[in-house]
Amino acid sequence: MIGGGRGAFIGGVHRIAAAMDGRAELVAGAFSSDEMRSRASGADFFLDPDRVYGSYAAMAKAEAAMPPEKRLDFVVIVTPNHEHFGPARLFLEAGFNVVCDKPATFDLAQAKKLRAIVRRKGKVFALTHNYTGNAMVKQARELVRDGTVGKIRKVVVEYPQGWLSDAVVLLGPKQAEWRTDPKRSGAAGCMGDIGTHAENLARYITGLEIEELCADLTTFVKGRKLDDDGNVLVRYKGGAKGVLHASQVCIGDENNLNIRVYGTRAALEWYQEQPNELVVKFPNKPSQVWRRGNLYLGDEAKRFTRIPPGHPEGYLEAFANIYREAFQAIAAEVKGERIPKNLDFPTIDDGVEGMAFIEAVVRSSRLGATWVKPLR
Amino acid sequence: MIGGGRGAFIGGVHRIAAAMDGRAELVAGAFSSDEMRSRASGADFFLDPDRVYGSYAAMAKAEAAMPPEKRLDFVVIVTPNHEHFGPARLFLEAGFNVVCDKPATFDLAQAKKLRAIVRRKGKVFALTHNYTGNAMVKQARELVRDGTVGKIRKVVVEYPQGWLSDAVVLLGPKQAEWRTDPKRSGAAGCMGDIGTHAENLARYITGLEIEELCADLTTFVKGRKLDDDGNVLVRYKGGAKGVLHASQVCIGDENNLNIRVYGTRAALEWYQEQPNELVVKFPNKPSQVWRRGNLYLGDEAKRFTRIPPGHPEGYLEAFANIYREAFQAIAAEVKGERIPKNLDFPTIDDGVEGMAFIEAVVRSSRLGATWVKPLR
Amino acid sequence: MIGGGRGAFIGGVHRIAAAMDGRAELVAGAFSSDEMRSRASGADFFLDPDRVYGSYAAMAKAEAAMPPEKRLDFVVIVTPNHEHFGPARLFLEAGFNVVCDKPATFDLAQAKKLRAIVRRKGKVFALTHNYTGNAMVKQARELVRDGTVGKIRKVVVEYPQGWLSDAVVLLGPKQAEWRTDPKRSGAAGCMGDIGTHAENLARYITGLEIEELCADLTTFVKGRKLDDDGNVLVRYKGGAKGVLHASQVCIGDENNLNIRVYGTRAALEWYQEQPNELVVKFPNKPSQVWRRGNLYLGDEAKRFTRIPPGHPEGYLEAFANIYREAFQAIAAEVKGERIPKNLDFPTIDDGVEGMAFIEAVVRSSRLGATWVKPLR
Amino acid sequence: MIGGGRGAFIGGVHRIAAAMDGRAELVAGAFSSDEMRSRASGADFFLDPDRVYGSYAAMAKAEAAMPPEKRLDFVVIVTPNHEHFGPARLFLEAGFNVVCDKPATFDLAQAKKLRAIVRRKGKVFALTHNYTGNAMVKQARELVRDGTVGKIRKVVVEYPQGWLSDAVVLLGPKQAEWRTDPKRSGAAGCMGDIGTHAENLARYITGLEIEELCADLTTFVKGRKLDDDGNVLVRYKGGAKGVLHASQVCIGDENNLNIRVYGTRAALEWYQEQPNELVVKFPNKPSQVWRRGNLYLGDEAKRFTRIPPGHPEGYLEAFANIYREAFQAIAAEVKGERIPKNLDFPTIDDGVEGMAFIEAVVRSSRLGATWVKPLR
Repeated sequence: MIGGGRGAFIGGVHRIAAAMDGRAELVAGAFSSDEMRSRASGADFFLDPDRVYGSYAAMAKAEAAMPPEKRLDFVVIVTPNHEHFGPARLFLEAGFNVVCDKPATFDLAQAKKLRAIVRRKGKVFALTHNYTGNAMVKQARELVRDGTVGKIRKVVVEYPQGWLSDAVVLLGPKQAEWRTDPKRSGAAGCMGDIGTHAENLARYITGLEIEELCADLTTFVKGRKLDDDGNVLVRYKGGAKGVLHASQVCIGDENNLNIRVYGTRAALEWYQEQPNELVVKFPNKPSQVWRRGNLYLGDEAKRFTRIPPGHPEGYLEAFANIYREAFQAIAAEVKGERIPKNLDFPTIDDGVEGMAFIEAVVRSSRLGATWVKPLR
Repeated sequence: MIGGGRGAFIGGVHRIAAAMDGRAELVAGAFSSDEMRSRASGADFFLDPDRVYGSYAAMAKAEAAMPPEKRLDFVVIVTPNHEHFGPARLFLEAGFNVVCDKPATFDLAQAKKLRAIVRRKGKVFALTHNYTGNAMVKQARELVRDGTVGKIRKVVVEYPQGWLSDAVVLLGPKQAEWRTDPKRSGAAGCMGDIGTHAENLARYITGLEIEELCADLTTFVKGRKLDDDGNVLVRYKGGAKGVLHASQVCIGDENNLNIRVYGTRAALEWYQEQPNELVVKFPNKPSQVWRRGNLYLGDEAKRFTRIPPGHPEGYLEAFANIYREAFQAIAAEVKGERIPKNLDFPTIDDGVEGMAFIEAVVRSSRLGATWVKPLR
Repeated sequence: MIGGGRGAFIGGVHRIAAAMDGRAELVAGAFSSDEMRSRASGADFFLDPDRVYGSYAAMAKAEAAMPPEKRLDFVVIVTPNHEHFGPARLFLEAGFNVVCDKPATFDLAQAKKLRAIVRRKGKVFALTHNYTGNAMVKQARELVRDGTVGKIRKVVVEYPQGWLSDAVVLLGPKQAEWRTDPKRSGAAGCMGDIGTHAENLARYITGLEIEELCADLTTFVKGRKLDDDGNVLVRYKGGAKGVLHASQVCIGDENNLNIRVYGTRAALEWYQEQPNELVVKFPNKPSQVWRRGNLYLGDEAKRFTRIPPGHPEGYLEAFANIYREAFQAIAAEVKGERIPKNLDFPTIDDGVEGMAFIEAVVRSSRLGATWVKPLR
Repeated sequence: MIGGGRGAFIGGVHRIAAAMDGRAELVAGAFSSDEMRSRASGADFFLDPDRVYGSYAAMAKAEAAMPPEKRLDFVVIVTPNHEHFGPARLFLEAGFNVVCDKPATFDLAQAKKLRAIVRRKGKVFALTHNYTGNAMVKQARELVRDGTVGKIRKVVVEYPQGWLSDAVVLLGPKQAEWRTDPKRSGAAGCMGDIGTHAENLARYITGLEIEELCADLTTFVKGRKLDDDGNVLVRYKGGAKGVLHASQVCIGDENNLNIRVYGTRAALEWYQEQPNELVVKFPNKPSQVWRRGNLYLGDEAKRFTRIPPGHPEGYLEAFANIYREAFQAIAAEVKGERIPKNLDFPTIDDGVEGMAFIEAVVRSSRLGATWVKPLR
């Protein structure tokens, strides 16, 4: 693991998610660029001190020199955005598979470079757009794919949060600090941190590609250097229309990612904070609430479920589903087998798409909120 | 009553709403431009056949000639949009007060003319933007006005319906027909029919004025001549941002008008289909559900309530609240007294604002969804 | 109208409900046993002072002497429980139809006497168990009757309120005073006031008759003379089991009457505070939300609906539905026609059943909460 | 681990929950009384074949002989109810700490014997009444303990499930088979399997002890030997009243454990299927929704939380909270330190209370649903 030491939020999530199904174990890490801190974190996790490093470069070098039976199968990168590309490149070049937190990189150019490296090296690169790991999100996608929804007309995807609504931030300084710093977060604040999740979720479920968008980004909190709110109109290829908005100044909203998809035959509604439910609506019929774990669900929703209906799964389980699927690819790669196609986890292609989205919304907004096309 | 004969939806609503509090009685009408139909409707309502007319012109003439004690106090106009201005002008000029269904007129020019007439004649013109009649909407406005919400940053207002999602329409041909006909409905379809309600609701609660907007309207159902969906980005005077979207092709959505208002101190959420509740959120506090009829509510929310908490009021009661307030103005006017200021019902000014909104969204969309300013 | 003067709650509800569909008009009343108060109330309603009375006896006498074309078609009794039987008997004997608030009478003996009078006189006696007027309650009954639910196994019906949770009552002294006074309310407090609604609702939907019950009533607020809480186990004829509980000390609950019915084939859920929805569940299928006003509903649910889906109807509309149906019976009776059978409104038979329920729960509780049979 | 091999539900849950926080590892097991099956399961979990056993007796013997550094710290018993006491006794006697699935034993007598053994041996015995592991359940308890709720008047606790509503069971034969077999499940079916969870949850939150109860149990599905439904009236020591009902024939209900607690000052509502929320209501105030992860929560709710608000935790996280707390006791015991008091996990005392509850409801029901006292 690269990053994710004491005080970090997402590192802990990755550790639980990766280990949930008993298929991975944390054995080494460079948990902080401060060696003392890294070592302290390693001790927290009961690691062999020999495999706790003061920098990812040292770790890549040492681990690459390990004998195969002791070697890492993959590394997990959970540093701030500006420190994704460096370790990702290094470990991929050194022959390791990589799991990386989103967004993929600091900017679009890095993402494209990384895509080239991934392709050249033939390694696994999994990007943890975790919300698509939810069973009912998979069900939503299946209902689009099998024609139940019909041709999609409209997509409304929202991601309101409220934790950055003040200059003084409730969840503690560490999380807020780098996310609002353009040198570490990238060109976008809110849109990079959570707008990309919204974009990814919509694309995952609908399969639609953005043709052009018009984005109005705002920084409401004084002194902040990046957007903390963004409203986007979307035109998808094929004629569907979309509304995407995300914010970190929506007081009282915690993590309210949600999506509605309206087609010619049916409509879907999913709320991340009630992840076990998917509302499905048909013309002139009672609306339906489909719930995780039931026999009436499709194969994909069933495949990503651990416990029976009514026993709620949550954020960590969805996160673990991304890992579970990526592990199949990693296991194949490690054994020297062909990596199976069509495994269901986000890859560097999603990473490039996400960075193209960020670049486009920032560009549109700087032009006064005019229509622009993503540069993929 | 002008319009609202057999088969009409909104006419029946007006009749119940106007009579609910025992302060008005239906005594005359031109219920249809087809005289036979008008007479049949008059019989349905047990009216004196002498006061049932084959045209609003005939009605205006005959009723204006009545002795004062028998004269109408006001007329209600519930015809399709293209037939609002004609009767409104005629009855105002003849000295009657007018209650008119929304939107005010067929186009912005008519609305401005009507405003001039209303001002010149000193009569009451009430526009039934009924949703603002809800007690909890009034509470929402009070929480903005008294500073609880703080400075508003973001407004999200939605109005998704699904009943026009097919060319063949579920609620019967009569409702759909004129609403999708540019000769009767005006320049906008969905945005005129319900988008204006969304605009009005947002303005009523927040007090914010739209500085400019960017609207992307779509006609999804083949053969339809007007928009059945619209997505709008809004910039309010003073810096707040908005998202407004309305649709009549959102399968499974019935009449899901809803609004969220985010300020620097608190946020509000209201759903028309659950009108007795208002969600109020503060930073670092549990979210609150304020409910109609309780002692803890403000004066305005209390004033527009008939029954105790937990005994749900609905659409008709909210509608009746508009009437109840307009009746105070009408009663004063009829007695020759000064019409009290600050009565809480929508007027011709709201009508002009609504028509300016419609004109602006249509203009923006025709220009490819660029930013335009409403022409008030 | 008997009772329902200034300050009364339920009188105003009856006036709005009776008039909602334009089929009834208030023309006379004895609004209070205090003549001055009665007259003041009469003036509030714009009544002819000659038809405002200081006692129901005076009213019965005077109105019975009116010429047929001016005579009342029916009277409405909205006095406290101990004053139901007197006026009901008097007006029935004088040849009037009667609409009466629930519970029917002060005690079971009175209810049986009243039943005999109603039968003998052949007049209409409608009891306003208003909650069964809800369109979705009618749909629930239809799903039981048409076999969708299968054989019923379990019924859970709850009616928690919180407004009497203190000795000092929030909604004002007048409502609380007589309801907690055994001389005016009858043998039960909470169970008489709202427990009977729960009993009636369950019987209406399921058609099941209580074979025996075991009731544990409690008075939580010191100094109160009647129960303010009651929990009841029920055994229905035919083997179904039930849980019925009602309370007026459930802080924060407003008027949360709700019912769940579980059968061998399906289950139903209805909440009075969300009256436009009925949840229907089937084995191994997504649960369904049926909503008022839609084409997919049964004939009864459609018949008792005024406005389209998504335009919420509430308490007053349900109440008006009881009146609407009773008016058909009254209209027939007034014309001297046979009163149609199977009209859908509560009658004196429901009144006797309700009083038998009250008598049984009080008897059971006094015996230490043992099993007893209602004495019908 | 004893039990929990292939096809078992609860074994998998225990494995994930125990390992979630990186503080436990599965190293040995007797996963089935069929040795082949046990070995196959051991292989699934990548265990050393030397530590996979064909019987719990063999395992106890072999593991007790291990050197201290390799020895198990605790065993987990996840067999059907009739096989709890045997291994629990054996392992306790052999000096191991025990984590055991609920209910504690096959009958009350065994539970009392086990209590004596636990006390005598001074070992940890943790019982996985997992629902009390939820952060918002802990918050509920805190609001009772700190006086916010006031003196409790009424408790309504429900546990409706629908999966046994047919003779042919949807979730597969293995789960249903032993639960409906009196030789393996004990004297109660539904009340033992889930009624005990309801009892435990109510006691955990309120601290109230059942003085007497009146239980009406039913077997609705033909051929079933144990109750599949039960309705219970409760009288608590100190005067509070309760309603507890549980069922496994409530079609469409998944795992809908929920509780409402009404006190003199406030009321609480919690639904297991929405575990991140706790509704708190006060007289004459808006109701409040308290949500997991927020700074305004009490220390206990904060202590049992892994991820920020709006990132839903679910069933597994609550289960893991029981383990997390038990591990503190186990760690102390293993180190030879004193086991800290007041750790927050269910113990053999909860087990005895649960078995006394089961014995009482069965006894009451057999007596025709009369009032009985639990024999603790």
